Amino acid sequence: MIDETHDSSARSFLETDDRSDFPIQNLPLGVFRRRDEIGHGHIATRIGDQIFDLSAARRTGLLADADGAIADACGETGLNRLMSLGRAASRSLRRTIFQLVKAGSAHEEAVRRCLFPVDEAEMLLPAQIGDYTDFYASVNHATNVGSMFRPDNPLLPNYKWVPIGYHGRASSIIVSGTPVRRPFGQTKDEKAAGPEFGPTKRLDFELEVGAFIGKENALGTTIAIDEAEEHLFGLCLVNDWSARDIQAWEYQPLGPFLAKNFATTISPWIVTADALEPFRSPAASRAEGDPQPLPYLAAADGRGFDLALEVWIRTSRMREAGLAAARLSSTDFQKMYWTFAQMIAHHASNGCNLRSGDLIASGTVSGEKREERGSLLELAWRGSEPVELPNGEIRRFLEDGDEIILQGRCSREGFAPIGFGECRGRIANDS
Amino acid sequence: MIDETHDSSARSFLETDDRSDFPIQNLPLGVFRRRDEIGHGHIATRIGDQIFDLSAARRTGLLADADGAIADACGETGLNRLMSLGRAASRSLRRTIFQLVKAGSAHEEAVRRCLFPVDEAEMLLPAQIGDYTDFYASVNHATNVGSMFRPDNPLLPNYKWVPIGYHGRASSIIVSGTPVRRPFGQTKDEKAAGPEFGPTKRLDFELEVGAFIGKENALGTTIAIDEAEEHLFGLCLVNDWSARDIQAWEYQPLGPFLAKNFATTISPWIVTADALEPFRSPAASRAEGDPQPLPYLAAADGRGFDLALEVWIRTSRMREAGLAAARLSSTDFQKMYWTFAQMIAHHASNGCNLRSGDLIASGTVSGEKREERGSLLELAWRGSEPVELPNGEIRRFLEDGDEIILQGRCSREGFAPIGFGECRGRIANDS
Repeated sequence: MIDETHDSSARSFLETDDRSDFPIQNLPLGVFRRRDEIGHGHIATRIGDQIFDLSAARRTGLLADADGAIADACGETGLNRLMSLGRAASRSLRRTIFQLVKAGSAHEEAVRRCLFPVDEAEMLLPAQIGDYTDFYASVNHATNVGSMFRPDNPLLPNYKWVPIGYHGRASSIIVSGTPVRRPFGQTKDEKAAGPEFGPTKRLDFELEVGAFIGKENALGTTIAIDEAEEHLFGLCLVNDWSARDIQAWEYQPLGPFLAKNFATTISPWIVTADALEPFRSPAASRAEGDPQPLPYLAAADGRGFDLALEVWIRTSRMREAGLAAARLSSTDFQKMYWTFAQMIAHHASNGCNLRSGDLIASGTVSGEKREERGSLLELAWRGSEPVELPNGEIRRFLEDGDEIILQGRCSREGFAPIGFGECRGRIANDS
Repeated sequence: MIDETHDSSARSFLETDDRSDFPIQNLPLGVFRRRDEIGHGHIATRIGDQIFDLSAARRTGLLADADGAIADACGETGLNRLMSLGRAASRSLRRTIFQLVKAGSAHEEAVRRCLFPVDEAEMLLPAQIGDYTDFYASVNHATNVGSMFRPDNPLLPNYKWVPIGYHGRASSIIVSGTPVRRPFGQTKDEKAAGPEFGPTKRLDFELEVGAFIGKENALGTTIAIDEAEEHLFGLCLVNDWSARDIQAWEYQPLGPFLAKNFATTISPWIVTADALEPFRSPAASRAEGDPQPLPYLAAADGRGFDLALEVWIRTSRMREAGLAAARLSSTDFQKMYWTFAQMIAHHASNGCNLRSGDLIASGTVSGEKREERGSLLELAWRGSEPVELPNGEIRRFLEDGDEIILQGRCSREGFAPIGFGECRGRIANDS
């Protein structure tokens, strides 16, 4: 639903740079803590470089116009309760915040007392993530990876029928900025008699988009495809770090495990589904001859998100030389084969309960072209086409000290562009 | 460590049947709620048919001898905090409880005021389960299943090197007694052009043993194999319900997903690792020619658990005819290829953090003989060797109204036998 909060002419009394990811039309939600503070976090939104502390806003009566349950949820230490209230509640909170921070707001002075500069804040995980599910919704990614491992049969017969997904690890989801240690694990050379145990030699990133579940369904109940977006609270960026050599040796027959669960980085600000309303794309792309989705996956209004995504790298040598990060990949989320609505409806189709705060990731987002590939495995084609960085460095896989930065941005004629901020992680040098 | 709490001559002032799973030598931990009560649960132990409410014991000062942190943890609504305190804490609590409930206890009268009959209690999940991991630690099960799907190559090359595991779904873990709905899902006939969507026709149980994590490790740190049992709080029984037809169609390339995550039933009483000390078995069985475990999986003292397991079935017709349940399977947990210590060390070997209350299941426990198989898939050999029940009914897979009951019991010369109680679940008739 497009409303006054999406009006491109709207301005906040807080100045924002024209290129900021966080104009008044965004109003993402996250959880922060003052750097000088010990203890739990506070729910907040962000305008430009200012954090607007919603727990402080609640305490000072600024959320008095909002429903009591919504205001109370803003006083929690994570977004789970607010998520559980459903889309109408998050839309209502969005409108309340918009009125508070817009130019000419009667509450400017009171709002200013709840502000905090982003530089002095530590961002925390936005919610307690009960379960994390990773899908595999890019047909280009599935085809790329499949053609490396099964040249004759790159795409498995179930791919265009089943939104393939698997369970990830919730405990090792970390927020942007947290260092990542190079994992140890078993790997096996094709020629070796047995495996060896040591640090991965094939560390990779995966560019993904994550969806947080809002309203939950009870165990044993399903979610109809046309109701699925009622359960979609908002999106973030996800880097699903992967150890390709560990993965190759361990993944049969039950799927990836230690190759993935050492770390998954997410961006701290959840861009709500409401903020993304102007940036919907047509249904996920289908090619001629692709099967019609089965009825439980066929939406009357099956839309994706038109979200431009980029991956940047900054190596130790680049940092030492004062060089800026270099772009590795640039793609678009609307090229996915399955939409989040389909992933949600599929996930609950057997009665599995999705809880508020659960995270569903899209799987690696890759386009058709080389520069649109969302992992180094694909960009350097399993090491056979090394990537050359602007400073002459070569990458087949990630090296210690490499920092990967994911970015996402939505823009459309007639609307103010909004963005996701960064999802950043550096491979620790001590590993 | 064997101590006075394992003394077979010890008796409680509470009478227990000789065949009870819960003599004073057991003292399992769980969370119950009075049936007439609304709200959260209370931590308790069980002796015979009596629940000893440890939160009430704490309130009335009965735990005053215990460390303050231990007593406080007994006042929580789940076992996570107690688990986080580590093995020394659970051993200490065990000794405190033992002194309170033994015959001749000075506190008999006060303890009796904290008792509650099991029949009037509703058992809840014993802990908040952050992540659930399912292993595949029975080489017999892996060989059985492999030989159905890959007759030429039943056991994959990684099996004897890697404790194969994958992430399960935490949200759909339910406690014994909760009905299970037959899940819908995509299945594909070999001859059909495309899949169809409907209720599974191949619903199955899986007999497993679960381990709850006690002390946690921080992200980025590992757990040495000889320290692994310090992180093992206790065991329960697990029925990892499975839809074999959904599994066959969905599981490539990322593993089982909707075939498993509609429900996983656990027994409500956690038998602590301390209670199981007398029932340790030699290291998991290795056959001639099996490789030595890699150093990170090689324990100086690599012991399993000698735990007899049984699966029983009671169909609707058996219930209507007043017939007792019939035994489907009888096996032993000491036949596993990998120990829980190895599974824990492997799980954390890449720096993955295991949190207090996380559940690790063993995978289906199958022995070598037909009657030792831990799933109906194996017992009826994919439907080709139907199982005949005593009343003449035939089962290839589970039918609506079937109830599956898992039992586990430890016994050894010189020690009082202890048991796990039941892990029970019925396929709802309404599905």
